[in-house]
Amino acid sequence: MQRFDTRATDFEARFAAFLNSPRESGATVDQAVAAILADVAARGDDAVLEYTARFDRLTLTPETMRVQEAEINAAIARVPSDQTEALALAAKRIERFHRAQMPRDLLLDDEDGITLGMRWNALDAVGLYVPGGKAAYPSSVLMNAIPARVAGVERIAMCVPAPDGVLNPLVLAAARLSGVSEIYRIGGAQAVGAFAYGTATIGRVDRVVGPGNAYVAEAKRQVFGRVGIDSIAGPSEVVVLADAAQSPRRVAVDLLAQAEHDEAAQSILITIDPAFADAVAAAVEQEIPSLPRATIAGASWRDHGAIILARDWDEAARLTDRLAPEHLQIMTDDPAGLFARIRHAGAAFLGSFCPEALGDYVAGPNHVLPTNRTARFASGLSVFDFLKRTTWIAAEESGLQRIGPAAVTLAEAEGLQAHARSIALRLGQ
Amino acid sequence: MQRFDTRATDFEARFAAFLNSPRESGATVDQAVAAILADVAARGDDAVLEYTARFDRLTLTPETMRVQEAEINAAIARVPSDQTEALALAAKRIERFHRAQMPRDLLLDDEDGITLGMRWNALDAVGLYVPGGKAAYPSSVLMNAIPARVAGVERIAMCVPAPDGVLNPLVLAAARLSGVSEIYRIGGAQAVGAFAYGTATIGRVDRVVGPGNAYVAEAKRQVFGRVGIDSIAGPSEVVVLADAAQSPRRVAVDLLAQAEHDEAAQSILITIDPAFADAVAAAVEQEIPSLPRATIAGASWRDHGAIILARDWDEAARLTDRLAPEHLQIMTDDPAGLFARIRHAGAAFLGSFCPEALGDYVAGPNHVLPTNRTARFASGLSVFDFLKRTTWIAAEESGLQRIGPAAVTLAEAEGLQAHARSIALRLGQ
Repeated sequence: MQRFDTRATDFEARFAAFLNSPRESGATVDQAVAAILADVAARGDDAVLEYTARFDRLTLTPETMRVQEAEINAAIARVPSDQTEALALAAKRIERFHRAQMPRDLLLDDEDGITLGMRWNALDAVGLYVPGGKAAYPSSVLMNAIPARVAGVERIAMCVPAPDGVLNPLVLAAARLSGVSEIYRIGGAQAVGAFAYGTATIGRVDRVVGPGNAYVAEAKRQVFGRVGIDSIAGPSEVVVLADAAQSPRRVAVDLLAQAEHDEAAQSILITIDPAFADAVAAAVEQEIPSLPRATIAGASWRDHGAIILARDWDEAARLTDRLAPEHLQIMTDDPAGLFARIRHAGAAFLGSFCPEALGDYVAGPNHVLPTNRTARFASGLSVFDFLKRTTWIAAEESGLQRIGPAAVTLAEAEGLQAHARSIALRLGQ
Repeated sequence: MQRFDTRATDFEARFAAFLNSPRESGATVDQAVAAILADVAARGDDAVLEYTARFDRLTLTPETMRVQEAEINAAIARVPSDQTEALALAAKRIERFHRAQMPRDLLLDDEDGITLGMRWNALDAVGLYVPGGKAAYPSSVLMNAIPARVAGVERIAMCVPAPDGVLNPLVLAAARLSGVSEIYRIGGAQAVGAFAYGTATIGRVDRVVGPGNAYVAEAKRQVFGRVGIDSIAGPSEVVVLADAAQSPRRVAVDLLAQAEHDEAAQSILITIDPAFADAVAAAVEQEIPSLPRATIAGASWRDHGAIILARDWDEAARLTDRLAPEHLQIMTDDPAGLFARIRHAGAAFLGSFCPEALGDYVAGPNHVLPTNRTARFASGLSVFDFLKRTTWIAAEESGLQRIGPAAVTLAEAEGLQAHARSIALRLGQ
């Protein structure tokens, strides 16, 4: 963990270095991924099955690739009822929030012969990537599938790797609850390839979403253009803005909730009170040993954690914008007022009773968020990821007469004579 | 030009091959682009200047890279007044349409201790790529810059290559009219690199938009993740649905307006009347020689053009969805009704007096559209390309008590104990 004081003379240099320090190894998987994708494009199911045998130690056939209804039912029956109920509450709230996001079509009538519009349509088919193995998160299934269903996507295919054959029953329950149409027990770049190119068993989709490891992220990058993708997910991060009135232990646990995800996760406290900074630092050290994931959380905090002492909350807001964090927790006496001064964050959590974990599961907004400072330009997953727009123009002769001549002038200026002629002919020229 | 009849026994096989036939050479520029980007990231201005000297035959310094105000004023003074007026009309209409696109923030109050919201913010800085040389399109400047300005972007930087030093005065006039903040006379992958990494002269941006050649497209693909990008632009296409009541010559010129863009452009007529199909085919041949860009339009029509004879308009609609064209012109007796049956198109042009060229310049909707069948999942440029969303959650203690226990259950099921503890501590557990 690094400590910063904005009053220190070397603050700007150290903070700039901190902003630029990579949190994941730059191991290049480009070529390995390109080879897998080309193989899946060429050989379809055969390639997918071979990579699954090699990477997941799982021998499948085209028939057993897909998880059958009976298997899903059996898995769901094994889920404890408190988990089923928690999942249902989460699904209901996530659906409600995403339904509220749905945009309206646009209609602009000039009233003299030109009508303009914009129409929203759902994609036909979407592929959801769900990490398997040690990071099998049923909550991610809800967060990816429900917005697609709310948007109106007819076909929601899901790929989840089953290393050594193991699938998480709660993941299957979440898929059922979210309206997923098909589940395949495959993962990695080969799953992304199947989504993008289609195989005999897995139909091609129009967009691939969902987080994954470095291979999955690179595969999504490489198929981009052929299909749509969501943001490339990187390691997760949180910035906590907390004043001295907060409980140091709660703040410490909030920081560690981020740190326990991944050694590359990053947790940052910004405060203006030096004694509070010390108290949180001490509380973090005290809390770590009692966590089941102490090794991961400890490494993340040690290597990437930070406590920044700012002069005031205005400065804290400016530093937050430079960090553009995925998650932003604000625990001060006026959290909404401070949030209004900050432009760049994936999701914000306001108040002393709003730990980020609430949003990970049940609050309603999406937990798939822009990481690694991409909140400067990117947004969390939403119904917009599963919709596309078609604009339209309807012109009558009177409308063309009114604005057509300007289009002819510009087409001629650009040297596009057929463009100009297509209008001039209709103006009787 | 290929002729198709959906009643022919080999239709499906030939149409599938037509759908899959590439229209641009697969020449791989990946490595050349990667080298240029790495060089710009490492050496900044020096690298940009060297590539500009090599590719654009233009020797610049950090000072002369940027187009000065006096130069812009002098260029604008040379633009004929009819062009200035046409540009102003276009700008006004484009601004009006994009202003109507602006979304509203979201607020959902549970009324028992949980409030949810979603806030839209503009990006801080955007880079517009504008092709130069033979394809210098002032209309593209309006279409890229105005949505950014309407969205509220503070800094709009523009790169336009000036091969042999030549800049189009109308491009500079369009930039001034659209609120572009900075103009640099550089292009290619080096311009995209400057936008993504920043140099001493050109500040880094958050998102790069605008069409370009294969190098520019590949550069955008490679910097994706570091900055946002818009869709990768491919060769342009139009599908025209026209019935026998239309003028064959007008339809022919509409097809050629697409074909004159580029040898790789694609123009497709779908109709249900064989005699009308013949009449349009003849009219196209008759029209080509009189076009200044006859060679380009002729090559496009010959290599990629098609006339498809469908059984009825329902079938025509289904074929259109498989083509998912960038531009869709509908000239039938009920264009709006037919449009309602089609899901996939970048932009639609309805009626006999609505040639696509009207939308290229002055109608108002954007002309930067998804090409190469990506309208299945992608949309035209809009204010949404320059905005991002931050979702937020505000919880009071009562709200946390109500929904927090379900989050604890799910966090424990996922093995994330610090997540569970961050909530449990606040529930007094």
